[in-house]
Amino acid sequence: MTDHVTASYVIETSLPLERAAEVLAGEQSTGTFVRVERESGAVRARFAAQVESLEEIPMTDASALPGSVGDPALRRRALLRLRFPLDNFGPSIPNLQAAVAGNLFEIKELAAIKLVDLDLPVAFAERYGGPRFGVAGTRTLVGREQGAMIGTIVKPSIGLSPEQLAEVVDELARAGVDFIKDDELQGNGPSAPLAARVAAVMPVLKRHADRTGRMPMYAFNITDDIHLLEQNHDLVVSAGGTCVMVCINMVGLAGLAHVNRFARVPIHGHRAMFGAISRSDQLGFSFRAWQKLARLSGADHLHTNGISNKFYESDAQVLDAIAAVRTPLDGIGATVPVLSSGQWGGLAHATYRAVGTTDLLVLAGGGIHGHPGGAAEGVASMRDAWASAERGESVDQALAASPALRRATELFGPPRD
Amino acid sequence: MTDHVTASYVIETSLPLERAAEVLAGEQSTGTFVRVERESGAVRARFAAQVESLEEIPMTDASALPGSVGDPALRRRALLRLRFPLDNFGPSIPNLQAAVAGNLFEIKELAAIKLVDLDLPVAFAERYGGPRFGVAGTRTLVGREQGAMIGTIVKPSIGLSPEQLAEVVDELARAGVDFIKDDELQGNGPSAPLAARVAAVMPVLKRHADRTGRMPMYAFNITDDIHLLEQNHDLVVSAGGTCVMVCINMVGLAGLAHVNRFARVPIHGHRAMFGAISRSDQLGFSFRAWQKLARLSGADHLHTNGISNKFYESDAQVLDAIAAVRTPLDGIGATVPVLSSGQWGGLAHATYRAVGTTDLLVLAGGGIHGHPGGAAEGVASMRDAWASAERGESVDQALAASPALRRATELFGPPRD
Repeated sequence: MTDHVTASYVIETSLPLERAAEVLAGEQSTGTFVRVERESGAVRARFAAQVESLEEIPMTDASALPGSVGDPALRRRALLRLRFPLDNFGPSIPNLQAAVAGNLFEIKELAAIKLVDLDLPVAFAERYGGPRFGVAGTRTLVGREQGAMIGTIVKPSIGLSPEQLAEVVDELARAGVDFIKDDELQGNGPSAPLAARVAAVMPVLKRHADRTGRMPMYAFNITDDIHLLEQNHDLVVSAGGTCVMVCINMVGLAGLAHVNRFARVPIHGHRAMFGAISRSDQLGFSFRAWQKLARLSGADHLHTNGISNKFYESDAQVLDAIAAVRTPLDGIGATVPVLSSGQWGGLAHATYRAVGTTDLLVLAGGGIHGHPGGAAEGVASMRDAWASAERGESVDQALAASPALRRATELFGPPRD
Repeated sequence: MTDHVTASYVIETSLPLERAAEVLAGEQSTGTFVRVERESGAVRARFAAQVESLEEIPMTDASALPGSVGDPALRRRALLRLRFPLDNFGPSIPNLQAAVAGNLFEIKELAAIKLVDLDLPVAFAERYGGPRFGVAGTRTLVGREQGAMIGTIVKPSIGLSPEQLAEVVDELARAGVDFIKDDELQGNGPSAPLAARVAAVMPVLKRHADRTGRMPMYAFNITDDIHLLEQNHDLVVSAGGTCVMVCINMVGLAGLAHVNRFARVPIHGHRAMFGAISRSDQLGFSFRAWQKLARLSGADHLHTNGISNKFYESDAQVLDAIAAVRTPLDGIGATVPVLSSGQWGGLAHATYRAVGTTDLLVLAGGGIHGHPGGAAEGVASMRDAWASAERGESVDQALAASPALRRATELFGPPRD
């Protein structure tokens, strides 16, 4: 029995479901729009994608994707599992994607087509290796063996000079933060190039490390053209930096896997642009499918959003994403979920109750920088709240015990219970 | 006056349009969800994205994207042009994308958000260079200075042994085809690895070149992990190959730009997976916006689909895509449009009338392999039809003069007029 990949899709179609599934399977393996010479039975038996299961599920109210054939009112929706022989592409993520996530999004027989899960043989883990640091490696470097790791994003996102950045980092390090990251908008532009940021930030971090014995992890955004990634990484590491951030969709999953070949520090995987392939329920990738590829490709940390975030995702989606990246895959350990967007101390109890772990990076931008008492109180409010949540206390107990958390409510309103 | 990038979006929102535009501009430049220290007036003046124009346009029937706030019935739709200072990211395509196509797709104040165009300063062309071969370079290598370049895709897409592939290529070369490509599903898998395909195909092509003085261009699919791209390219070129194919979305635009740094032959840009970011009218990228980045990154050829294709795109979308890749950009010449999917000779007249040029690669898979008279008649039917179209003849004149085209109608029905 040869290895295979199983791809799960949610589809909608006005055709008979079985017919639509066959169109999809044919398009993505041996078929074209007419039967051709040499597409023999033997070729089809060995290389054709096979329908493993097809289960009708309830329709939603969403309108059909543009260009789909048939009467939209006759649409039905199904969960389709297709099995592809691994030999069709080998354990190569780029070539896998051509099969499981290529032209199929354009098939007009389908009024919706979303890749919702992927089951991959261990050959992928053997080839790509996955994250090298993960939870344990990150905790060691951060110097925080227990409890939620509390971090923040440099704000304003862009516009700070390297000198101003150093001031902000100094303030955050004094405040006792575990982790700081460049905003994804802060790349390698002329007003604050990576080299200048590294030169400004690292001496500040080292000074704090000398003082406290613990250096906050700073995720420098090394995103740029492929041939610059290694030198950007080396610049960070040679200056003593302990993390690099990669905007995965800007360098591609292939670019991430490339960084993973030379990275000597954890890779902080930012998912900017992910909404373009995932926000529609009818098109693209679910986070559950995509994160498997990102983790195989080496993401030690992966953004999942947090509950009550400022973006479109529901809490249920966020919690599913956090659970997904924490679930070991065949040959690949857990990645650290990065909770961000609209986060503050008042979300700790509700989050902890739902996820049951503190193996998390919880990032608050405005929630720390914008705290009425300043960044130090912002960090304290986060740490107090997470420690209280982990002890199983109520929100009221946390509020009673933490002046910093109480003060945060002046800006952010009551905590979520 | 500093350089800037202008990004055009179609948005929908239940908020006042101006308010939604400000949320978007803030999120993608200096803002976060609360005003923070150091987000000074000076920082905002220099780095904030500015609303250049905001024009209401008619709503469509499509339902709102998931997670958008407000009453969907109150939605309005607008064309929004945002201006970003180039200094925010510099002329780096990956970092540009974080600004113009990053987290914004997740903004819940927007019920639709699609990047429909980009105006980029010449600094991008200076950094990336764009295609090195384009129309003229491709025509020279193909040995076809005039008329549509007629090509095909190896079919069945996958499953042929290298020996069978050599047979197919021999047949196609005898048939007089200008161009042959690997299917995008044919990557570098164990049953027909790239090295074996190159070894099988190149002697066949060279034999035909010796006979005719002209070698068909074969686009070998070199798509794979980043560190394999250069050796895959070199394998093709050292064997005398004249084209490499890259699945752009599988290696990322960054991967394409990487290939363009060492490519010594034209890069055939396949767009598989593009549907995931473009099929929805409410999310992702238009082809017009995306193709600018793909061309800057080096695509000599770019798939546009053809009219009457088997995918979801309308003829209007296809024709707009063909026009887009043929329009020179500041510092960048035209890319060869690749018309494919469901193409056959009977579409030549309608296509030529609409596009007014033969600077095209017209690919027929089933239309050549599946022709009732075999591949040679398939190629003849395509070439006869395009030559007739270019002479300004009617479809009936073409049918009267070409037995191969007449025979094609037995399978494909009457030509489009």
